[in-house]
Amino acid sequence: MHKQGLLIVISGPSGAGKGTICQELIKKNQNICLSVSCTTRQPRTGEQHGVNYYFVSKLEFEEMIKNNKLLEYAKVYDNYYGTPIGYVEEKLNTGKDVILEIDIQGALQIKEKYPQGVLIFVVPPTLSTLRQRLADRKTDSQETINKRLNCVCQEMTNIAKYDYLVVNDEVEKALSQVEAILIAEKCRPSRFDINKFLES
Amino acid sequence: MHKQGLLIVISGPSGAGKGTICQELIKKNQNICLSVSCTTRQPRTGEQHGVNYYFVSKLEFEEMIKNNKLLEYAKVYDNYYGTPIGYVEEKLNTGKDVILEIDIQGALQIKEKYPQGVLIFVVPPTLSTLRQRLADRKTDSQETINKRLNCVCQEMTNIAKYDYLVVNDEVEKALSQVEAILIAEKCRPSRFDINKFLES
Repeated sequence: MHKQGLLIVISGPSGAGKGTICQELIKKNQNICLSVSCTTRQPRTGEQHGVNYYFVSKLEFEEMIKNNKLLEYAKVYDNYYGTPIGYVEEKLNTGKDVILEIDIQGALQIKEKYPQGVLIFVVPPTLSTLRQRLADRKTDSQETINKRLNCVCQEMTNIAKYDYLVVNDEVEKALSQVEAILIAEKCRPSRFDINKFLES
Repeated sequence: MHKQGLLIVISGPSGAGKGTICQELIKKNQNICLSVSCTTRQPRTGEQHGVNYYFVSKLEFEEMIKNNKLLEYAKVYDNYYGTPIGYVEEKLNTGKDVILEIDIQGALQIKEKYPQGVLIFVVPPTLSTLRQRLADRKTDSQETINKRLNCVCQEMTNIAKYDYLVVNDEVEKALSQVEAILIAEKCRPSRFDINKFLES
């Protein structure tokens, strides 16, 4: 029998490097997989059902909400986005760790439904690094960048609700901290089979 | 300014290999030091004051109890043993991690006085391994070994009060798990200086 995998939730400001950390984790660890969200938005060119997203109708999504089939969900403009419980549980039950990159609201919804989920907040080393990273992308106006930074300061008031905070100064170091967190979380006494031990 | 070090408390049955893990940790990590206990028992040949123990009089020890100068203490037969707060705090304040090898009663006293202390319980892979290890020592009678094993089964009912449980199958692996726990614990949001970040 496999031990249950870990549900790992990664949040943090845009530009903190969450995506890179998640990709590297999956590349290095065969036991970790990325959660696949479902959404009501139209697939973009190249996006595959079941790989990038599960593309569902609005009616199907609302049925999932009603039947408590989502770990968390949100409506962004006119589209729903959510994490299907089924997919996540199936992976966890085979002993796989599932990683989810998600915003604070989603992360806190998950903590409520699945308290053993491990919430990790990723931050850049300084606010000015973040400003620079956002500017380097050349996708946002100065005004948007300022708005984003204000938003980050707001978001940071929630870090105490997370289990861990990782400062992404160097990716290698941040990655090894996340890996250490996973090892530590697998040493929780609640995961230990005491009856099996007492018979051993 | 140094960040506060971690107080790490290691417990577990005799024969689980706590001592080896502690020694290896200290050998490998210059930032970790072993706590020095105080006791009212007489020094044995070769034992040094301030290295193996702080040897104090019964009166001095009882003064320390009265003035709340001990993180935990116990009376074993006619002698007191305890962990002086002063020594531990001094090390933690300079950013050093302090490791303490102590029984469950002591560990739980510490968790009460210093909730941010990290409690790790070390167990052998199976009860029969433990029986074998104790027999190999050739210091205990069969009756004593049986008593010890019963005692272990009793103690195991307390593992849920610990933060972590490490199975010491191979020392190298157990050691790397303890090291991962220390890295993870240093990623707690409570250790993050949010004001400094917001000004950065």
